[in-house]
Amino acid sequence: MTPTLRTPSQFNQLRRNVYRVLETASGSRRGISLIFNVLLSTIIALNALAIILHTVPSLNARFPRLFIEFELFSVLFFTIEYLLRVWVCVENEKYGHPVWGRLRYMVSTGALIHLLSILPFYFTLFHTDLALIRILRLFRIFRLFRITRYSHAFRVMQEVVADKKEELLLSLAFLVFMLIIISSVMYYLEHPTQPDKFSSIPATLWWGINAMATVGYGDIHPVTPLGKMLAGLTAVLGIGSFALPTGILASGFAEHIRSHKAHKKNHCPYCGRDF
Amino acid sequence: MTPTLRTPSQFNQLRRNVYRVLETASGSRRGISLIFNVLLSTIIALNALAIILHTVPSLNARFPRLFIEFELFSVLFFTIEYLLRVWVCVENEKYGHPVWGRLRYMVSTGALIHLLSILPFYFTLFHTDLALIRILRLFRIFRLFRITRYSHAFRVMQEVVADKKEELLLSLAFLVFMLIIISSVMYYLEHPTQPDKFSSIPATLWWGINAMATVGYGDIHPVTPLGKMLAGLTAVLGIGSFALPTGILASGFAEHIRSHKAHKKNHCPYCGRDF
Amino acid sequence: MTPTLRTPSQFNQLRRNVYRVLETASGSRRGISLIFNVLLSTIIALNALAIILHTVPSLNARFPRLFIEFELFSVLFFTIEYLLRVWVCVENEKYGHPVWGRLRYMVSTGALIHLLSILPFYFTLFHTDLALIRILRLFRIFRLFRITRYSHAFRVMQEVVADKKEELLLSLAFLVFMLIIISSVMYYLEHPTQPDKFSSIPATLWWGINAMATVGYGDIHPVTPLGKMLAGLTAVLGIGSFALPTGILASGFAEHIRSHKAHKKNHCPYCGRDF
Amino acid sequence: MTPTLRTPSQFNQLRRNVYRVLETASGSRRGISLIFNVLLSTIIALNALAIILHTVPSLNARFPRLFIEFELFSVLFFTIEYLLRVWVCVENEKYGHPVWGRLRYMVSTGALIHLLSILPFYFTLFHTDLALIRILRLFRIFRLFRITRYSHAFRVMQEVVADKKEELLLSLAFLVFMLIIISSVMYYLEHPTQPDKFSSIPATLWWGINAMATVGYGDIHPVTPLGKMLAGLTAVLGIGSFALPTGILASGFAEHIRSHKAHKKNHCPYCGRDF
Repeated sequence: MTPTLRTPSQFNQLRRNVYRVLETASGSRRGISLIFNVLLSTIIALNALAIILHTVPSLNARFPRLFIEFELFSVLFFTIEYLLRVWVCVENEKYGHPVWGRLRYMVSTGALIHLLSILPFYFTLFHTDLALIRILRLFRIFRLFRITRYSHAFRVMQEVVADKKEELLLSLAFLVFMLIIISSVMYYLEHPTQPDKFSSIPATLWWGINAMATVGYGDIHPVTPLGKMLAGLTAVLGIGSFALPTGILASGFAEHIRSHKAHKKNHCPYCGRDF
Repeated sequence: MTPTLRTPSQFNQLRRNVYRVLETASGSRRGISLIFNVLLSTIIALNALAIILHTVPSLNARFPRLFIEFELFSVLFFTIEYLLRVWVCVENEKYGHPVWGRLRYMVSTGALIHLLSILPFYFTLFHTDLALIRILRLFRIFRLFRITRYSHAFRVMQEVVADKKEELLLSLAFLVFMLIIISSVMYYLEHPTQPDKFSSIPATLWWGINAMATVGYGDIHPVTPLGKMLAGLTAVLGIGSFALPTGILASGFAEHIRSHKAHKKNHCPYCGRDF
Repeated sequence: MTPTLRTPSQFNQLRRNVYRVLETASGSRRGISLIFNVLLSTIIALNALAIILHTVPSLNARFPRLFIEFELFSVLFFTIEYLLRVWVCVENEKYGHPVWGRLRYMVSTGALIHLLSILPFYFTLFHTDLALIRILRLFRIFRLFRITRYSHAFRVMQEVVADKKEELLLSLAFLVFMLIIISSVMYYLEHPTQPDKFSSIPATLWWGINAMATVGYGDIHPVTPLGKMLAGLTAVLGIGSFALPTGILASGFAEHIRSHKAHKKNHCPYCGRDF
Repeated sequence: MTPTLRTPSQFNQLRRNVYRVLETASGSRRGISLIFNVLLSTIIALNALAIILHTVPSLNARFPRLFIEFELFSVLFFTIEYLLRVWVCVENEKYGHPVWGRLRYMVSTGALIHLLSILPFYFTLFHTDLALIRILRLFRIFRLFRITRYSHAFRVMQEVVADKKEELLLSLAFLVFMLIIISSVMYYLEHPTQPDKFSSIPATLWWGINAMATVGYGDIHPVTPLGKMLAGLTAVLGIGSFALPTGILASGFAEHIRSHKAHKKNHCPYCGRDF
């Protein structure tokens, strides 16, 4: 995150300052940066709230203008933010080149999510096809994903998953194999009796994942004695199979917290900066 | 809990003795204090039983007088206890001032719960509006919460939660984020097919929390292939997400018990006093 | 289990030998004792099978004589075994007195379960009241409980529960308190909307325990927004509350196995005897 | 896996080379062996996919030739592979004798699963009885089980289960005992009220296993107060009982991973070979 050194023109100085504000850099501009990032998090959180409440017919009918105006404001804000980020990204050594660096930044996960959360709005302006507009609106969910960048909880979880990648993959592979074998056998046991519910192996996989996770919605369950026996066995095996990724995550999380606490005295646990 | 020293008038002496009886102080009056606190716990437990059984129509019809009389007795008992506690709270250094100390005591959590568990009864005496009386009766549930002050289990749990506050908040934040993102995506997948069940994102959150906790009442579940895939993934992620607060609590509890057992020889594990 | 020393008459010698055979004593008669105990376990296991299969109408109709004859044989076998055990129990120092010792043995848990598993059969012989006979037959379930004495798994579990008694009681108390408070609040939230399902707090406790254990049969669930919020919170709290007794049992079991394995070289892990 | 030394005829040389290719031996032919095993795993995985998708009526109707042709190709491939394996197995010291060694190889679990996954196909060629053909097709599921041989996850799980065999058996015995006792008592409590659902103890076992695993499909649940109390207790006990095998597996898995990681520098974690 060390900005590259350039000729100290006023323009470059402005760009560097904008970069520092946007990226929560330490040093000067720290106060403004903090204010900006709190504001940004708040707008993203309000967008999450708007996306959720917008789908409630009674609320949408009562405050139609509020939702539309907030949408316009958010898109404007996120668009300016996007353009600024693309402009200043060259301050980051990783994206140093004026053209290729900016392109590389634009195809990074964060920037793509950012773009996908605003671009569809502009398409809806030039289309009258309601079905297409409905699909394009879906992309607003990407604004929710932007929260994950600002959430300490998500970052910790990402690190834990990265730490325990091998174990998690191993236990998930076991889970998937068990699921396929159990569902295939269950299909042959239950299909003749309940051809409408256990209609195919993919349909039986829906039963299988819920049986292994002990969800049990009750929309599909075996009725033959052999099917019930297999379902009982599945519940036991399922709890065992789920115990593995669960236990791995829990212990990884505990280790992370412990090593985090050791650093605590000299380290801000939320932004990762040294005092 | 060290009582402040005052002029040894007879009145003050009485107040100090009442304080010692009410607050299970060590030293003299310990026997009476123990008897009083066992009596109080019993009356609170009987109130819990009365609140539970009072809602069974057959029992309420058979013993109408018993429930009313026990209610009158309890309110009287709790009222006298409340007045005594307000009178004697100044013996505690924390609430030493005769006026401001007593006010500070009255707005403490324990005293507020105490007040809310009896005050509504007096309002019901002056009102004939049945709807209002019904709502005021709800406040009797606060008597149940008074158990928590006298329960060792609740105190241990409170300490464990306080110890592990940061980890719990982190994992709950992750849980809430996952819930919002999964429910939003599920709403867009299932709403077109089941507009009455997945009617809005808040309605889908009800599905989401139950899917993540693997409750599965069966009143709402996806039917589209994509919805079912997301539901299967949710079950796996849900068990993983729930594993974190669960594992944190369990290990915190184990640590607490272990450090408790080390103190055991010289310490009563229930009241916390030294022998 | 050291037999008391008596005058070496032939009668006493017989009694001591019978005692050794019944109680798996070490020393001589070990082979016969092992054979007898395997036979007894087999008969108890076959009784469990008979109790289970007897309730299947088609099997009961096809082999009516088989079930009756096996019942007669079992009762005869268990009766002789009971009489022998009462006769020889005085060989155990604990029940040494010919009269009081035998009475004390007869009121021990094991002997009471033994008696309750056979005595009702004799009552059914002298009664023609079918309703009474049906109730008396229930007592055959006590034969299942006799398995627990011969099961290593049950003994290990008993020891683990005894080791962790304090922690288990504490966490169960917390579970019960949470259950009562959550169910009471849920009753007041859901009763006005679903008076037939959330008919009283005891009826709501049925919802509560299943919600905390994430069973979710689907016969009863909240429908109001506030009720659903509380149900979501209950699922999270429930998994947390259940984590405690579960974690305590699991770690107690692991500790038991570990300390058991250390003894393994010189010790039979099934009968507890030294080699 | 050390091949036995023989007279260096060209025929034996060929057999040894084929053996090395099939069994992923180290040394020369390693590249071809790796390619062959990746190919074999791919064909098995595609078979799994074909078995799953073949049961979807719409897909089966659209690509009838594709499924039949892939089936023919797979059977041919697996048949040649089987014959080659039987031919070359004598290169393994374990199956050294030309006749008895080959027979011993043919009754090994892996070879039997291999045979059962192809043999039924040939029977279907000579039969026109559709019911029989349908049953014979079931045996294709054995091809899924062949995945387990090539899956690292399954091998790890097998080793963990073998390591913790005693503990798992103990906790499963406890689980089964609890299940039988709880279901028997529940049968007597609920049968008089719901004779169609709790029709027999075996039928109640279906309720029992789901109650202990907290699945709760909702097709069967107690309605009497005593039955509900027992069901509540079962949920608590069930979670406790399931915690044991689950905890054992999770800790066994963690130990395995830890000891595995220590070997990692000099060892391929997937094929077990030293670098």
